[in-house]
Amino acid sequence: MQADKVAVLGAGSWGTALGRLLAQPDRTVQLWSRRSDLAKDINGYRENRRYLAGVLLPARVRATANLDDVITDASVILLTVPSAALRETARLVAKKGSPDAVIISTCKGIEPSTGKRPSEVLKEELPAAMAERVVVLSGPSHAEEVARDIPTTVVVSSESRAMAEAVQDLLMRPHFRVYTNPDLLGVELGGALKNVIALACGIAEGLGFGDNTKAALVTRGLAEITRLGVAAGAQASTFSGLAGIGDLVVTCTSHHSRNMRFGVLIGKGKKLQAALDAVGQTVEAIRTTEAAYQMAQTLGVEMPIVTQCYRVLLEGVAPSEAVANLMGRLKTHEVEEGVKGWAH
Amino acid sequence: MQADKVAVLGAGSWGTALGRLLAQPDRTVQLWSRRSDLAKDINGYRENRRYLAGVLLPARVRATANLDDVITDASVILLTVPSAALRETARLVAKKGSPDAVIISTCKGIEPSTGKRPSEVLKEELPAAMAERVVVLSGPSHAEEVARDIPTTVVVSSESRAMAEAVQDLLMRPHFRVYTNPDLLGVELGGALKNVIALACGIAEGLGFGDNTKAALVTRGLAEITRLGVAAGAQASTFSGLAGIGDLVVTCTSHHSRNMRFGVLIGKGKKLQAALDAVGQTVEAIRTTEAAYQMAQTLGVEMPIVTQCYRVLLEGVAPSEAVANLMGRLKTHEVEEGVKGWAH
Repeated sequence: MQADKVAVLGAGSWGTALGRLLAQPDRTVQLWSRRSDLAKDINGYRENRRYLAGVLLPARVRATANLDDVITDASVILLTVPSAALRETARLVAKKGSPDAVIISTCKGIEPSTGKRPSEVLKEELPAAMAERVVVLSGPSHAEEVARDIPTTVVVSSESRAMAEAVQDLLMRPHFRVYTNPDLLGVELGGALKNVIALACGIAEGLGFGDNTKAALVTRGLAEITRLGVAAGAQASTFSGLAGIGDLVVTCTSHHSRNMRFGVLIGKGKKLQAALDAVGQTVEAIRTTEAAYQMAQTLGVEMPIVTQCYRVLLEGVAPSEAVANLMGRLKTHEVEEGVKGWAH
Repeated sequence: MQADKVAVLGAGSWGTALGRLLAQPDRTVQLWSRRSDLAKDINGYRENRRYLAGVLLPARVRATANLDDVITDASVILLTVPSAALRETARLVAKKGSPDAVIISTCKGIEPSTGKRPSEVLKEELPAAMAERVVVLSGPSHAEEVARDIPTTVVVSSESRAMAEAVQDLLMRPHFRVYTNPDLLGVELGGALKNVIALACGIAEGLGFGDNTKAALVTRGLAEITRLGVAAGAQASTFSGLAGIGDLVVTCTSHHSRNMRFGVLIGKGKKLQAALDAVGQTVEAIRTTEAAYQMAQTLGVEMPIVTQCYRVLLEGVAPSEAVANLMGRLKTHEVEEGVKGWAH
């Protein structure tokens, strides 16, 4: 795969960290930001002081607010915008990008207005030839750590094996290990649904609970998002992988996560709007909770944790009551029926 | 199940917390400790000041150093001793316990001298009728949190479904949710093998790595202990459950874990003996690493993380070299061959 010119759309922490990773001697990397002051600052300081402070960027990484400069002739277009901005960004790529470009999306959420997955949004907005070249990147990867060459593993998926393997080759580094996984649906669902479980972990923390409670939520949360994913057509093994349990663990144990921080405030008794105002940023878990709850209803999947999150966020149930509902369920076996078990 | 008299052998934090949980109005709970000064202190203060400080014990919980008092006529015998002491404790139970008693073991490690699982040790030492009544208890459960009624989930397993369900009934509380799982082998392997992955997480932390690295080790570690378990005859789903991922998460993210703390010292460059001296307690992960490595060889299972832990602990390889070996492996797909994937 040719990759002499890389366009990174979105100059946040992850776009900047991946731009740095991609900056090789034979390659230019351009970060696009709508804000020319940010682009100027990045170029002036060789550092993204706002979103990735303390990391020096090689001179081959340049920032600009001029989209045409960035995207024309780019052989790799990396989309690192939030899910709410993915569709409009895809439209720009459709209009200005080269049809030969590889499109890498790092978007983990679902689209707030439609509940669609990133690859679905891209398929709707990109020309068919371009849509076939879409690869999604997921897994447990704080940008701040990747930018400091701390060992990290990620997973790439695509409808095209050739594209997934090309991106694996492109991104693999001694400190950045890239796995491929053909289950695009599972990788995208894992990346989105983990935010609901992170929210639940935050609520538990806000209520003053401990590590046992979080481990329970991670384990039983994984079981229920796996059930939902499998009912939707994904592979169970994907949820035991980097885009599932890996991302879940890093999100539920990290206070970098907005969804966690938002959950802590809800657990402490704050009302929805007050918690949103306090976090001051988009909280993807709210829309994801709604979407997961609706999917579970449609597919007939039992999701006790998602259901309780839904009741707390959208029906005003008290967090302590939601916990009592979870813990007070009928006694159950751990594994699903159908798994080899006791003979009687 | 009759449970009017409960014997708890081992007056550590977990024995004390479970003794407190079991102390109901119609039941006496006796904690046995070899040390009469500890028993006297517990009774005098109604608190296990040494192992579970700050938790008031009900008057129905009594401690004693007299084993006959504790075990005679006990309808439930709870074994909370470390794996190195399990065999000799089982011999005492065989000699003095009632053949009708339910035996609950909370032992998670393997026996250092033989590499055997707790239920295997118990089977060897108990009369057949007693051995049939053995139930193991596992899952993510810091005693300090259970003793404070923080929501916790655990799993019980047994060769007998009736015994497992009887213990589920006995232990289930509003804040302590008990699942059953028929996969005794998987539950015991999960509880033991997770210590190797916790050790690896500790080493990574000692080397100065971050949350991405730990999430990678948890995810890929889970994949390899699942592979080993399945090769040995266990169910993959058990490793995605409370005794697998649940216990792994709580151990790898907690500094209460001796295995983690020992790993951190090794990662910082301490020699084996110096690290052991500094932790000052048994570190089960060393023997478990050896046993897992040997099992992997015998069963022909690839276990990259266990292999590198083995090399660091037993062959003196530098931790940084072990990490390079892990990260520098050939590029791979995330899922095993045989899972539905790309058609070409």
